[in-house]
Amino acid sequence: ETNKSKKKLTLMFISRWIIMFAVGIGTALLAAGVQISVEIIAHEKFHLIQKYIDRCSTESCTLFLPIGIWVVINVVITLLGAALVTYVQPVAAGSGIPFIKSYLNGVRIPGLLNFRAFISKTLGVILSILGGLACGKEGPMAHSGGIMAAGFAKGRMRYGKKKEIKFYDAFRSDHEIRDFVAAGAASGVSAAFGAPVGGTLFSVEEAASFWNTELVWRVFFSAMVACFSTNFLLSAFEGHPTHLSSPGLVRFSTFQNLSFDLIEIPVFLVMAVIGGLAGALFVVLNYKLTVFRRKYIRRKWLKVLEAGIVSLAGALLAFLLMYSVDECTEVKHYSDHAITAQMFCKDKSHNSMSSLFLTTPEGCLKALLHDPHDAYGVIPLTVFIVVFFLLGVWTYGLSVSSGVFIPSLAIGAAWGRLIGLGVVELFPHHAKDVGKYALIGAASMLGGILRTTISLTVIIVECTGDISFGLPIMLTLMISKWVGDFFTTGLYDMNVEVSGIPLLSWEPPPLCENIKASEVMSQPVLSLHTEEKVGSILEILESETYGGFPVVETNPKYRQYYSGKLKGLILKNQLLVLLKKKIFAPEGMLPPGVNIRCKDFDNPYPVGQRLTLKDIEVTEEEKEHVIDLKPYMNFSPYTVGPSFSMPRVFKLFRGLGLRHLIVVNNNYEPVGMVTRKDLAKYRAESKRGMLKVEHLKIENV
Amino acid sequence: ETNKSKKKLTLMFISRWIIMFAVGIGTALLAAGVQISVEIIAHEKFHLIQKYIDRCSTESCTLFLPIGIWVVINVVITLLGAALVTYVQPVAAGSGIPFIKSYLNGVRIPGLLNFRAFISKTLGVILSILGGLACGKEGPMAHSGGIMAAGFAKGRMRYGKKKEIKFYDAFRSDHEIRDFVAAGAASGVSAAFGAPVGGTLFSVEEAASFWNTELVWRVFFSAMVACFSTNFLLSAFEGHPTHLSSPGLVRFSTFQNLSFDLIEIPVFLVMAVIGGLAGALFVVLNYKLTVFRRKYIRRKWLKVLEAGIVSLAGALLAFLLMYSVDECTEVKHYSDHAITAQMFCKDKSHNSMSSLFLTTPEGCLKALLHDPHDAYGVIPLTVFIVVFFLLGVWTYGLSVSSGVFIPSLAIGAAWGRLIGLGVVELFPHHAKDVGKYALIGAASMLGGILRTTISLTVIIVECTGDISFGLPIMLTLMISKWVGDFFTTGLYDMNVEVSGIPLLSWEPPPLCENIKASEVMSQPVLSLHTEEKVGSILEILESETYGGFPVVETNPKYRQYYSGKLKGLILKNQLLVLLKKKIFAPEGMLPPGVNIRCKDFDNPYPVGQRLTLKDIEVTEEEKEHVIDLKPYMNFSPYTVGPSFSMPRVFKLFRGLGLRHLIVVNNNYEPVGMVTRKDLAKYRAESKRGMLKVEHLKIENV
Repeated sequence: ETNKSKKKLTLMFISRWIIMFAVGIGTALLAAGVQISVEIIAHEKFHLIQKYIDRCSTESCTLFLPIGIWVVINVVITLLGAALVTYVQPVAAGSGIPFIKSYLNGVRIPGLLNFRAFISKTLGVILSILGGLACGKEGPMAHSGGIMAAGFAKGRMRYGKKKEIKFYDAFRSDHEIRDFVAAGAASGVSAAFGAPVGGTLFSVEEAASFWNTELVWRVFFSAMVACFSTNFLLSAFEGHPTHLSSPGLVRFSTFQNLSFDLIEIPVFLVMAVIGGLAGALFVVLNYKLTVFRRKYIRRKWLKVLEAGIVSLAGALLAFLLMYSVDECTEVKHYSDHAITAQMFCKDKSHNSMSSLFLTTPEGCLKALLHDPHDAYGVIPLTVFIVVFFLLGVWTYGLSVSSGVFIPSLAIGAAWGRLIGLGVVELFPHHAKDVGKYALIGAASMLGGILRTTISLTVIIVECTGDISFGLPIMLTLMISKWVGDFFTTGLYDMNVEVSGIPLLSWEPPPLCENIKASEVMSQPVLSLHTEEKVGSILEILESETYGGFPVVETNPKYRQYYSGKLKGLILKNQLLVLLKKKIFAPEGMLPPGVNIRCKDFDNPYPVGQRLTLKDIEVTEEEKEHVIDLKPYMNFSPYTVGPSFSMPRVFKLFRGLGLRHLIVVNNNYEPVGMVTRKDLAKYRAESKRGMLKVEHLKIENV
Repeated sequence: ETNKSKKKLTLMFISRWIIMFAVGIGTALLAAGVQISVEIIAHEKFHLIQKYIDRCSTESCTLFLPIGIWVVINVVITLLGAALVTYVQPVAAGSGIPFIKSYLNGVRIPGLLNFRAFISKTLGVILSILGGLACGKEGPMAHSGGIMAAGFAKGRMRYGKKKEIKFYDAFRSDHEIRDFVAAGAASGVSAAFGAPVGGTLFSVEEAASFWNTELVWRVFFSAMVACFSTNFLLSAFEGHPTHLSSPGLVRFSTFQNLSFDLIEIPVFLVMAVIGGLAGALFVVLNYKLTVFRRKYIRRKWLKVLEAGIVSLAGALLAFLLMYSVDECTEVKHYSDHAITAQMFCKDKSHNSMSSLFLTTPEGCLKALLHDPHDAYGVIPLTVFIVVFFLLGVWTYGLSVSSGVFIPSLAIGAAWGRLIGLGVVELFPHHAKDVGKYALIGAASMLGGILRTTISLTVIIVECTGDISFGLPIMLTLMISKWVGDFFTTGLYDMNVEVSGIPLLSWEPPPLCENIKASEVMSQPVLSLHTEEKVGSILEILESETYGGFPVVETNPKYRQYYSGKLKGLILKNQLLVLLKKKIFAPEGMLPPGVNIRCKDFDNPYPVGQRLTLKDIEVTEEEKEHVIDLKPYMNFSPYTVGPSFSMPRVFKLFRGLGLRHLIVVNNNYEPVGMVTRKDLAKYRAESKRGMLKVEHLKIENV
């Protein structure tokens, strides 16, 4: 027996590692695939547009043709992407990281990890980028990685209402699946940025609830494999597979000169403050927009339409800017990352705006970081910052698959470059390169918007490939987080709060020491007896939405709810399975000999459709039958006394990942029940200032 | 009232950050101080020796004079260092990281964080290195940082049996202090290696029990400040304070050419396996030695003597090697980190062994990593590896303050360099530089000995200053950990196991699902009544060693132990305080109006001396008096039922940092008590192979 379980343990150990390896490889294939297809198609698109623009600016044809082509291509692609997300799987909208975070926190989000979400997310992000939206593919990459990991872990993939492909029997428990999803998310970030350490930390900091060395160690492995394989694949695509020069999709390339002097620190600090303020503004504007959307843009076609409008606006604005800001830059050799349009410039020079708009947001970021300091003047930069900031705010939250990393970095890099120009102007002896200011600007903007400092520091340092610049980046991110936190929560947290997901934070809310469990709990709690009538069970299931019910001693004297000592806990899902399988019999008789195995009680899919009351058909006669709950219930549920303090209840939930906690009195009789929702209601009131989500509407998820 | 508490919360928030800042600055001052004093004095010492050696090898005088000087200096200094540790504070022996780890895990270790430990540790490590032992100062730095942080957090420092200096009233709870200690340890590592991210991760991975973003974020801040300030101080010492070129005590300097090719990976993998094997061998040998020491070297003077012998052996061996391995190297300009002796070599060349032995272990490591590939031949390297490996094993565990990072790295760098020479020989076209093989060797050796992979990867990458080499380093560390884990646990864990500290691992031991709380718990548990006689309390305190006791309802019918419903939990310490302050009265009367505030129950010092039974003086008459426990006890202790499973009990302890858990029956009457020790007994049997710590003697700590 022991030998057998040992063998099983070893097998599970090995299969965990193998799946982690597969997750890494899979994420890399995905990332490389997305990257390569975007690069190829986007290149074609921008070449086409450039051709028409330049033809019209040299020959005298109207500019309507190139604008028309541009707008039509972008809008059509964007509409496709938006429709894909909106009609196939709405949960795939946005970056996906807030949802993955909530899922890992222990909240169920229907459909988050199914095959439709995978398709919508992955295809969707390709379409969004090709559609010219101000978005990146890093958040979606993390989500797709998570879905893939869940699929691998479970050995099956649900693709329809009740259809699924099954490959093998693997891990079934929620807990295990969650670990794999964390690894998938980390691999996604790792593949996207070539940042295995950063990706791992991101998954832990932003998402996972526990630091468990064993787990983090597997996550790290998976992230490493992902980074390495992406590197291999992209290098192979570029024709030198063994040279390994492309560690991630977004590599900031090498900076020539990233040393810094102590006297530059104040400049960086000022930039950090700006980043924090700008980040908070971004969050506030996006919050207002989100609230507006939730009120007025509720129909599916409206959502798709909005995405089309944003795309249209983006294309028109970009063209308008290229047209109106008539600044020329000499063509230089190294600017090979972007396609440039000559427009009204002389030969051998091009419109400087064009190299920012005739490229993907990523290419734009690279241009801002690496182009020589005279590539963009003050006016084009200023205009670009304003336009791109507003487009970024507008884009995030659309019903398309889109990440916020790259646009944030690009906005930051732009104003960082602007400040860099100022510094070069003021201290021509000290500063020559604006690239490092662009980098600091990018970091501080990202920090101001997202606020996940530790992992972002590592990600940016890994992207830069130069560790010595880590200190200023850290400092910047810290300050920008503080400044931002003074005004609002981070973008992801805002998202989560607005969606009303009962996410539990790291610490119990402050000033709740004197609140007792008896004040937090929901009551009265409806209990079941160890032997309970089918009718009563149905009644309770109809009237209560809890996921679990206390089971109390059957006391022949008075058969009513709330009486008797606590004997165990039974889950709603278990009750439904028992009812569905008709494991009951008239009082005094044995139930039919149907085999019920542990497996039958498992969720067929942690986030998929589950049995509901509607699936149960019971005759009036059967309602008088009795179910014996003893064989199925959990005999030792977590319980606390009524005077247990709120912070300690919170810690129990957070530390053990509980979903329900029974409150018992001195006689061990259940008097109430605490659920996640009860606790989430007590979230501390939001930050001072503009953002106040007052009445938390905790949705039924 | 709410306003007042809000104000208090803000104040606490700010003071936490200020203290974290102070911890960072303090650690940096400490690190820089240690570094500078070691550098200056060691330089003097080696110069002196070199002078005598070279004088004797050119003129014809016997070599006894330099040997004599060398041996005397080393042995005297080492004896001083050993005496300091052994007589002043024995807990300061070794690297300190295993103890810090246990402390953060929730185990009390008397004296670990007091002023004596600080002095012994800090002065001790200077003496150890100057005494020529094969040890580094990184572990001790982490311990000293932790002590300093605890001191800052508490605003006082205990320096004698009952003496202490008090500066201000600050944080008192164990929990808070623990957080600061984690930050101090991280800052120590960060200052030592110039690796703020690595230090933070080290603290989390190796030490802290929880990943709490708020906390890690403060730890990171502190580590960053430490790194930055050390950089500033050391740069200032070198004369260019604003240039910031010395990020840590151990910076591997910049490698000229750290790119790698895919086809080099197999070589790295083989090296990783070697590192794992060598690491396991190191642990096994050290384990045998530790067991031997615990059996036979128990007297203080013997411990000091052993340290002296090791130092003597080290000095003699070093000299013998320099004398016998007669290989000469041309003097080159860049070898400025070491002092070299000419010995029997021609002019303009020096004995190649001398540059490895006439320097601190750190200098030796740098030489092995960076010297050109013809600096050391095969024979000197082989001899060096064997000798340094054995010295390393012998040194770790001596009663001196010594770290194991640097010697491990140096051993690994030496055999890595040896392999590099082989590769250069075999593939002269592909490989030219042996530095990168030395680096991989160092990483794999360290991984094989310590096994803390994630943080070590980051630390080494940060030390190297080059992120592109991160992937091979990760791979190497992973494989070497696996190989090592197959044979033994890591060095620190071995240490902890041998000391019998009841450390709880991350996960419940495998195959314990069927064990129930009732089998794990200690029983019978002696309970107190809510109103209890002084005599009975004394009796219970004498007969039981628990830190807490259940309090049950006073049932006038039968006054005996184990009866009545559970009402609360009272700590041993609280009982002692109540007895000491004589808060009791004859039955039926009110106790004297002595003020007892919460503060009186706090431990005056989390790891210092506490009240014991001996401090209590009670007359026979007073023994009949009664204490009313109700005002003092905890009304809602954590409880579980007897059928609760072991893994869930384990998770409660681990997740909530519990020390005792009361097991209650259906009537809410206490039937047993689970403590850390009960759980630690169930530690999974050790790894296959040589190391089996069979009967875990859980000491009374």
